[in-house]
Amino acid sequence: MAVAPSSSSEPVAGERFLGEIREQPDALRSLLAYDAQFALVAETMRERGASLVRMVGHGSSDNAASYGVYAFGLLPRWTALRDSITLTVYFKSGPDLSGSTVLALSQSGQTPDVVEYVQRARAAGAFTVAITNDPSSELAAAAEAMLPLAAGEEHAVAATKTYVNQLAALGLLASHVASRGAEFGEHLRATADRLSVLIHELETRIPALALPFAFVGRMFVIGRGPEYATAREIALKLLETCRVAAEPLTATDLAHGPIAALDSQFPVWTIASDDETLPAVLEAAERARAAGGTLVASGTAAHQVEGASCIVPVPAPTLPLCSPLLSVAPGQLFAWALARAKGLDPDRPNGLTKITLAR
Amino acid sequence: MAVAPSSSSEPVAGERFLGEIREQPDALRSLLAYDAQFALVAETMRERGASLVRMVGHGSSDNAASYGVYAFGLLPRWTALRDSITLTVYFKSGPDLSGSTVLALSQSGQTPDVVEYVQRARAAGAFTVAITNDPSSELAAAAEAMLPLAAGEEHAVAATKTYVNQLAALGLLASHVASRGAEFGEHLRATADRLSVLIHELETRIPALALPFAFVGRMFVIGRGPEYATAREIALKLLETCRVAAEPLTATDLAHGPIAALDSQFPVWTIASDDETLPAVLEAAERARAAGGTLVASGTAAHQVEGASCIVPVPAPTLPLCSPLLSVAPGQLFAWALARAKGLDPDRPNGLTKITLAR
Repeated sequence: MAVAPSSSSEPVAGERFLGEIREQPDALRSLLAYDAQFALVAETMRERGASLVRMVGHGSSDNAASYGVYAFGLLPRWTALRDSITLTVYFKSGPDLSGSTVLALSQSGQTPDVVEYVQRARAAGAFTVAITNDPSSELAAAAEAMLPLAAGEEHAVAATKTYVNQLAALGLLASHVASRGAEFGEHLRATADRLSVLIHELETRIPALALPFAFVGRMFVIGRGPEYATAREIALKLLETCRVAAEPLTATDLAHGPIAALDSQFPVWTIASDDETLPAVLEAAERARAAGGTLVASGTAAHQVEGASCIVPVPAPTLPLCSPLLSVAPGQLFAWALARAKGLDPDRPNGLTKITLAR
Repeated sequence: MAVAPSSSSEPVAGERFLGEIREQPDALRSLLAYDAQFALVAETMRERGASLVRMVGHGSSDNAASYGVYAFGLLPRWTALRDSITLTVYFKSGPDLSGSTVLALSQSGQTPDVVEYVQRARAAGAFTVAITNDPSSELAAAAEAMLPLAAGEEHAVAATKTYVNQLAALGLLASHVASRGAEFGEHLRATADRLSVLIHELETRIPALALPFAFVGRMFVIGRGPEYATAREIALKLLETCRVAAEPLTATDLAHGPIAALDSQFPVWTIASDDETLPAVLEAAERARAAGGTLVASGTAAHQVEGASCIVPVPAPTLPLCSPLLSVAPGQLFAWALARAKGLDPDRPNGLTKITLAR
C-alpha cells in the first residue's frame, strides 16, 4: 500500500489521480487571481436583477451545483436551483428567463447539452455565465460571460481539483453578490492552507483505513445542507474509481425508505460538519447504526458520530461555508486508496473518458 | 409465487402492498372529484403572480416533486423546483417568497420539517398549499390552502397510491394554471382505465420476471425528463422492500461516472418512454449494455431498448405527460414480487414506520 512518486516511466496506478488531489490547494490559490472577474459578473447579476440563479452541469459539476444552492442561499439569500436541462434542450419548453442568471458548469466546456442549454437560455433573456476550466471552449464562447476555474489542466478521469475550484467559484461569486467578496477570498486562502496540511496527513493515514472496505459493494453517503454536495461527490468518486454502488442521500432521506436496506455489510459514510444541520446528521447516523449499518464518519464534527468504525476528521475552516472544500478530501483519498486495495487503477475507470460527450 | 387474497386471518407477505397497488386506478378517479379545488388554487396562483413553484417533501413525495418540475415546465411553462428545506428550516435563511407558490407534499401531513418549512414560507410571503392525504393534518392547518390526495387510507409502509395521486395532483394543478384542466382531467380518467388493465396483467406476469434477480444487491434505474421521477420511485421501492442498493440516475448522469461501476451482476433498469428524451435514454441504455450491464426495460418504448434481458412494456397514455402514472406500476409490482422471491415481507420493511418523523 506504500505510495511514492514513481521514478520509472511505468505509470503507478492512481498516480495521476493522487497528483491532482495534491494540487488542489495551489489550484484554489490560482483561482483567486481572477477575483476581479468574479466581482464584475456579480455586479452585472445585481444590476440586471438576474437574481434567480439556474445552475446546470453533469457529474461532479452537478454535485458542485448542490453547493451553489447554499452559497447563494446563505450569502445574498438568493434562490439558486439545479435547473432541468431536459426541459430547455429536449422539450424546447424553457420559460422566459429575464431575471435569471445561468451558471453553466463544465470542466471541459464541451458537454453538448450544457452548451445547447446556454445558447437557448441566452436567447430567452438569461444572463449566461460559463464556469469552465477551458476559457477557449465552446461553452465559454456560447455564454455572455466566462469565469475561469483556473485549476490547471486536469488529466485524471475522476475530477478533483476542478470540483474544489467549482465550489470556490460558486462561493466567491455568491459572496461578491452579497458584497462580501474580499472577506470570502481571505477565507478561501486560509482554506487552501488547511487543505494542504490535511491532504499531506491523510495520504499516509487513509490506506490503512480503507483496507477493511475492500470487499464492500454498496454504501450510502449522507450529508445535509452545504455538505450534501460533498456526499454526492464522495459517492461519485467511489462509484467511478472503486466500483462501489455508493448512493448519496440527505440525512433525512435516509429515514424515508433507504434505511430498510441496511445491514452490517452496508457501510454508511456520514459527513458531520459543525453547522446548523449537525443535530439532524447525528440523528441520521444513530438511526443507521441502530439499523446495523457500519459507520464511517468524516467532517469537522466526525468525532461526534457515535459508534463510527472509521473516523476521518477534518480541520475547521475559518468560515463554516468553506467546510465542503475540506471535507471532500477524505473521500477523494479514500477512493484512491480503496481502488488500489481492490486492484483497480483509479486513473483508468472502466468505460469512462475525460470529456463526456453523452447526451 | 402464487398470490391470492388471503382468506385466513394470517397475513400473506406483501398482501397490503399489493392491495394498495391494485387500488391505484380507483384512487386516481377519487382525486378527480376534487377538480374544482385544484382549479381554485390554480386561479389564486395566477392572480397572485406566484409563478415560482417551490416543492418540498421527502421520500416518495420528493420523487413526485421531480415530476412536478416537468408538469409545470411543460404545461404553463413555469419554473418549479425541489426547494431546500434545510436553508429555510435549519439556517433560517430563506429568501423573500412573494412571487412563490409552495407545494408541500406529505402523505401523512406530519413530516416535521415540511410543516416548519411551510410555516416559515407562509410568513415570508409565499402562497402555501398542502397536498396531503390527511386533510385534518398539521400540515393542512399550517398552509393557506389544502388539496387532498384523496387516495384513501394507505397502510403499507412503501407508498404506492399516494405517490400516483401526487403525480396526478401536480399534473392537474399545473394544467389548471395553463387553463387546460378539463382536458387533463380526461387524460387522467383514461390513464386510470389503462392502469387498471396494466396492473391486472402484470400481477401474474411479473413474479417469473423478477425471480432471476433474487441475488441482485445493486442496481441503477435510469430515466429522463418526466420519467426521472419514475426512476427515483422505482429505486426507492427496491431499496425499501427488497434491500437492493438501487440508485436512480438521469440517462445522462450514467455516462458521467457511474457507468464505471457496471458489470453483468449490476442490472440497469431503463425507463424508456416515447417522448422527446427517448433518443438520450436509448443511447444511455446502449452504453450500459456495452459496459456489461444487464438491462431491464420498461416504459411505453420498452421494446426499443436493444438487448434487454427483461422487458415490461406499458401501454401508451392518451397524453405523454401521463406516462409516469403508468410506468411506475412495473416497478411497484417488481418490488413486490422480488421481495417475496427473496423471502422478505414487503409489508414489513426493516426499521421503517409509516409516518416518518425524522428531521
